[in-house]
Amino acid sequence: MNYKVTLAYDGTRYSGFQRQENANTIQEEVEGALSLIYGREVKISGAGRTDSGVHARGQVFSFTADERVPLNSLPHALKGLLPRDIVAWKAEEAAADFHARFSPSRKEYCYTVDNGIFPDVFTRRYAYHFPALLDLEAMQAAAGELKGCRDFSAFQGAGSDTRETFRCLDEAGVFPRGQYLKLVFRAEGFLYKMVRIMAGTLLKVGEGSLKPGDLRDILKSRCRDRAGPTAPPHGLCLERVIYE
Amino acid sequence: MNYKVTLAYDGTRYSGFQRQENANTIQEEVEGALSLIYGREVKISGAGRTDSGVHARGQVFSFTADERVPLNSLPHALKGLLPRDIVAWKAEEAAADFHARFSPSRKEYCYTVDNGIFPDVFTRRYAYHFPALLDLEAMQAAAGELKGCRDFSAFQGAGSDTRETFRCLDEAGVFPRGQYLKLVFRAEGFLYKMVRIMAGTLLKVGEGSLKPGDLRDILKSRCRDRAGPTAPPHGLCLERVIYE
Repeated sequence: MNYKVTLAYDGTRYSGFQRQENANTIQEEVEGALSLIYGREVKISGAGRTDSGVHARGQVFSFTADERVPLNSLPHALKGLLPRDIVAWKAEEAAADFHARFSPSRKEYCYTVDNGIFPDVFTRRYAYHFPALLDLEAMQAAAGELKGCRDFSAFQGAGSDTRETFRCLDEAGVFPRGQYLKLVFRAEGFLYKMVRIMAGTLLKVGEGSLKPGDLRDILKSRCRDRAGPTAPPHGLCLERVIYE
Repeated sequence: MNYKVTLAYDGTRYSGFQRQENANTIQEEVEGALSLIYGREVKISGAGRTDSGVHARGQVFSFTADERVPLNSLPHALKGLLPRDIVAWKAEEAAADFHARFSPSRKEYCYTVDNGIFPDVFTRRYAYHFPALLDLEAMQAAAGELKGCRDFSAFQGAGSDTRETFRCLDEAGVFPRGQYLKLVFRAEGFLYKMVRIMAGTLLKVGEGSLKPGDLRDILKSRCRDRAGPTAPPHGLCLERVIYE
């Protein structure tokens, strides 16, 4: 059977989702637990490769296996085997041709900014504390400039060899929630570190060191140095993956 | 000058608020930071002695010191010296006779239950995951039985020598918030582990193994064994201290 599983994790202790040598990864933990359950090596495919320190509420992975574990029991079996900072909270039967990574999907990320004068101790691992006075309307206007289909070269992190830098942002929004700002981005695909660079750039606009209209020039320049800094990973969360 | 400071902390790493030998405590951390700021040993007095693993959003402490640090700068100075899981977010000048522990006050505690089928990874340190189906109305009725002035002997943890076991609960409420239940208790004073035993007892009512009307008999019995179990510390938070 082909399985589709939805996963939440606190990325603090991990070097990202994707398995790599000599590093603690989400994929390694999940594959280890599934291999114990099925008594053989199980390989999974994840929808998004979250970076080191990035969290997820709705990461999706797929794998194929026999039906020895009832679908409803699978998340409970995983709960007993996974560390407490990884929770597989939904398991579904997927169509035979479903593939978490390659089936067409849109991914929604949320970057959380704690804009309180002092940080909330209870969210310090999941929100970037940025106590500056922020111009919310300017940030919303700047987010609007990012929305749509564009060449996002200026928002691609160093260390990526992706040449096709055209992406379509369905959503780029800034939402105040108490002392927090939620920066929400949704697209079929993102460039390396693109969400964190967009978050860092919107914060520059919020502070007033960039204007909303500057976003057009930054996009046009295709130059990484023109955009804002890469916001730290702990504010970022993969909220959900929406399959067609 | 007499100072009143409001403090939030993640109690996970600490053996409670009150200083003790060979244990990591909030008081020791705060006194250490203040002693560095003032260049002499500073002693503080805290409103509530939270137990090991219990959190606070609005703990209050008082101390006296000279005025070398402007009032508004004190929280920033403390932020630079305290670990990230302790945040002093407000400093005020208090009347000369104010004393965080002995001035009349009411303390509000919140016990957070994560009632989701699977725990939310992001609140796993601050909410007690209890996935049973709960009868909310029964819990609310039971909380109503606790409200008022009563002998709470049955809700006092072992290891306390307090003989005056009469307390007045101004508030005992059960509030659903998404997948969470907030159990709110407010009183001038609580017995040792009283809030956690009340939380554990309300959960027994929620599950159906106790009835709301049983609360009267449990109170009357003055017998600890009749009440429910002591709920774990990580769900408990001292929300605020209200001075007259």
